[in-house]
Amino acid sequence: MANMTSTEWALAERPVGMPKLSDFQKKTVDVAAPGDGEIQVQNEWMSVDPYMRGRMYDRESYVPPFQIGETMQGGAVGRVTASNHPDYKEGDLVSSMAGWRTAWTAKPEAVMAQKLPDVGLPESAFLGIAGMPGLTAYAGILRVAELKEGDTVFVSGAAGAVGSTVVQIAKIKNCTVIGSAGGQEKCDFVKSLGADHVIDYKAAGGFQGLVKALKEASPKGIDVYFDNVGGDHLTAAIECARPMARFAECGMIAQYNETGQPTGPHNIIQVVGKQLKIQGFIVSTHADMQPAFFKDMAEWISSGQVKYEETVMEGIDKAPDAFLGLFSGANKGKMLVKLG
Amino acid sequence: MANMTSTEWALAERPVGMPKLSDFQKKTVDVAAPGDGEIQVQNEWMSVDPYMRGRMYDRESYVPPFQIGETMQGGAVGRVTASNHPDYKEGDLVSSMAGWRTAWTAKPEAVMAQKLPDVGLPESAFLGIAGMPGLTAYAGILRVAELKEGDTVFVSGAAGAVGSTVVQIAKIKNCTVIGSAGGQEKCDFVKSLGADHVIDYKAAGGFQGLVKALKEASPKGIDVYFDNVGGDHLTAAIECARPMARFAECGMIAQYNETGQPTGPHNIIQVVGKQLKIQGFIVSTHADMQPAFFKDMAEWISSGQVKYEETVMEGIDKAPDAFLGLFSGANKGKMLVKLG
Repeated sequence: MANMTSTEWALAERPVGMPKLSDFQKKTVDVAAPGDGEIQVQNEWMSVDPYMRGRMYDRESYVPPFQIGETMQGGAVGRVTASNHPDYKEGDLVSSMAGWRTAWTAKPEAVMAQKLPDVGLPESAFLGIAGMPGLTAYAGILRVAELKEGDTVFVSGAAGAVGSTVVQIAKIKNCTVIGSAGGQEKCDFVKSLGADHVIDYKAAGGFQGLVKALKEASPKGIDVYFDNVGGDHLTAAIECARPMARFAECGMIAQYNETGQPTGPHNIIQVVGKQLKIQGFIVSTHADMQPAFFKDMAEWISSGQVKYEETVMEGIDKAPDAFLGLFSGANKGKMLVKLG
Repeated sequence: MANMTSTEWALAERPVGMPKLSDFQKKTVDVAAPGDGEIQVQNEWMSVDPYMRGRMYDRESYVPPFQIGETMQGGAVGRVTASNHPDYKEGDLVSSMAGWRTAWTAKPEAVMAQKLPDVGLPESAFLGIAGMPGLTAYAGILRVAELKEGDTVFVSGAAGAVGSTVVQIAKIKNCTVIGSAGGQEKCDFVKSLGADHVIDYKAAGGFQGLVKALKEASPKGIDVYFDNVGGDHLTAAIECARPMARFAECGMIAQYNETGQPTGPHNIIQVVGKQLKIQGFIVSTHADMQPAFFKDMAEWISSGQVKYEETVMEGIDKAPDAFLGLFSGANKGKMLVKLG
């Protein structure tokens, strides 16, 4: 296969507040045969992730904003269909940042492509439990939050791709785990992963409700907070933190579609007296942990200590729906789009 | 001298909002001759510090609250007048937490008493530059904020006992230093300590003004923020932080007398994308740094690399005035009460 076409998604305009389908536009582009040092890949899976919302704003950040009319980027897994690069051959499985499209031709380094190891995992796992969300959970809980055996750990967004992995790693490390999620079905899922306590934040009702639920679950307070949500969850975690608690700030999905000025945690002063450490992180900063992560994760999955769920939408046409579903809570575990 | 009397200060009632003189009551108590393992000390200096405001609330914290009618505690330096303890003799200079009084008899360990080294410093220095505020600055900027040569450092409360020391340590470590203080006289003082830029926060006018001033002083942003103030200063520091910046949260004096619900930093979400580390600390956690601190500080003072100022009020009767002065900005450098 030499010349192919790719179906791709771009921003039609920048979303204001909650994104909607009309913010996206589909296009078809030709995919050339690979030039010198290039590979041609047909994507089989693509990922949608909450952080992508940040790239839809026109602002300076750790990754450049998506441009109107240009194909968006994101995690993808596919097979090499033609190669003009010495390290790649037809049929190789690769991960890349060339998502939101069905096929591409590029130099591997231009799209952060990586040949995937054959560790007996299904292809889609490399976009979730054994991919970026998995490494995010691993680096965040072990390095940023400095997890210690016996800690009491609070995880928000505990039914999500990252959160559900954090819950399981913390249990493997003999911690007491409190997970929060929205709705009975997700809470049951979090419980099934081994969480000791589950808080349905939709039922809890805001800051005071979260504090009450947290104090019931851990009368002595929490040692670690893994934050995917921000907002009231963060404020409640500060309120219930024990001295020297560590917060791994992975995301604040509660604020991603905020149009007004968000409210900061009113109890931030407790950071001083309790000597809290609140630390943000981005997975790419911790890429050095990837070899240890692959090794541990393959072992944990094969021993049954780590389980994972996927919510799969079928076909490139469904990619914007899959993305929007992240904000309405449509996913249990990793949200994926199956392309192949 | 065996039996003595001590003039002491207690809370008459718990302050609401800004403390006032009528919240304090003076009393005279007898000071016994030292029993077995005890020493009798006449205080020569006592310290007033912003953190004491926290102990005036009836709430759980890292130190127990002051009780109504009971003599308050705080840093003091005095001379042994009688000893029934093998390690202490008459005339020894000791620091202790038995402040807010002119004399006392106790076991040294009960009041955290410590014999002071003869390193050629005046007695009062052990309550400031070579005492708790100095060690707070030293541990906070070097360990908590992980100061590196060449960092751009923002220090709020830069004319205070802790802040003025932070400014000078950061200059010794070849950093660019921006200090904020209130009013021309204090700003001149901060400049005289070597700060590269000084922001008069009273003239700057809130969050937007602080951001503008910070961006002028450091167009590329700040690497370190040493926070004594909280409130708008903290929010502005988040806004102007470079990726991977470290915040040492030492205090939030802007909030100590707050009666309503304070406003948290509305831009807290930047902690994630910029990978900020915001870490609170209390000096006692870093007591292991004291030997290195004494050595470095004695050297820096004798070489003239570190200068310090004191604002001295005379006599135990003035102790509440001295404390209240901390919140009206009456002090330049360490606020002290001379008792001897």
